[in-house]
Amino acid sequence: MDRQHDPLSAIFAALADPTRRAILARLARGEASVTELAAPFDLSQPAVSKHLRVLERAGLIEQGRQAQWRPRRLRAEPLRDVAEWIGQYRPHWEESFEKLDVFLRELQDEKRTQRGTDDDRDKD
Amino acid sequence: MDRQHDPLSAIFAALADPTRRAILARLARGEASVTELAAPFDLSQPAVSKHLRVLERAGLIEQGRQAQWRPRRLRAEPLRDVAEWIGQYRPHWEESFEKLDVFLRELQDEKRTQRGTDDDRDKD
Repeated sequence: MDRQHDPLSAIFAALADPTRRAILARLARGEASVTELAAPFDLSQPAVSKHLRVLERAGLIEQGRQAQWRPRRLRAEPLRDVAEWIGQYRPHWEESFEKLDVFLRELQDEKRTQRGTDDDRDKD
Repeated sequence: MDRQHDPLSAIFAALADPTRRAILARLARGEASVTELAAPFDLSQPAVSKHLRVLERAGLIEQGRQAQWRPRRLRAEPLRDVAEWIGQYRPHWEESFEKLDVFLRELQDEKRTQRGTDDDRDKD
């Protein structure tokens, strides 16, 4: 399935790499050339170009129009679709963290009761 | 890099497949056996098991303790990390949609002005 048919899979696959996520973070601060993007990574320009192609196919970056320099810039719109997809699961993770919270509070109450009992014993 | 070292990449890679996302959507409605999970897809049980292993390694599902049935259930907590990561880009996509909104409003105003000029001409 290509991006045309399954854009969400292409976006997730593009994000499944720490270098590509770092490139997006850099572009979030402003457009940059391939040379500028390669600089902070221990990567050849062809390797960076390959990452850029994956990001471009996923619609997450685009090329500027200046013929010589051709800076890349962030296209954040597809990330909204990802945020919407993830959002459906919010009630599920919130429920998990609430359960953990209840468990920890119960544990604390138990300890407090235990300590109370110990104090009573000391008095005897 | 394995999940231990780069959990976010493992999660994104696990989500980069429509069948795996459909499995998560099914498990969001309640736990299910491999057979139940395979049913709606035109997939063999080994193919489904492979998808389940990817989801399990990413920490997105877990196996129940009943020895015979071993139902899978959703673990939504890692999706919160994804939502947080995506959230950093919210100002960027909101800015894009605002720009589009301004552009469309300007276009509408221009049309209205154009229509006004046409009406004036009709009066002459």
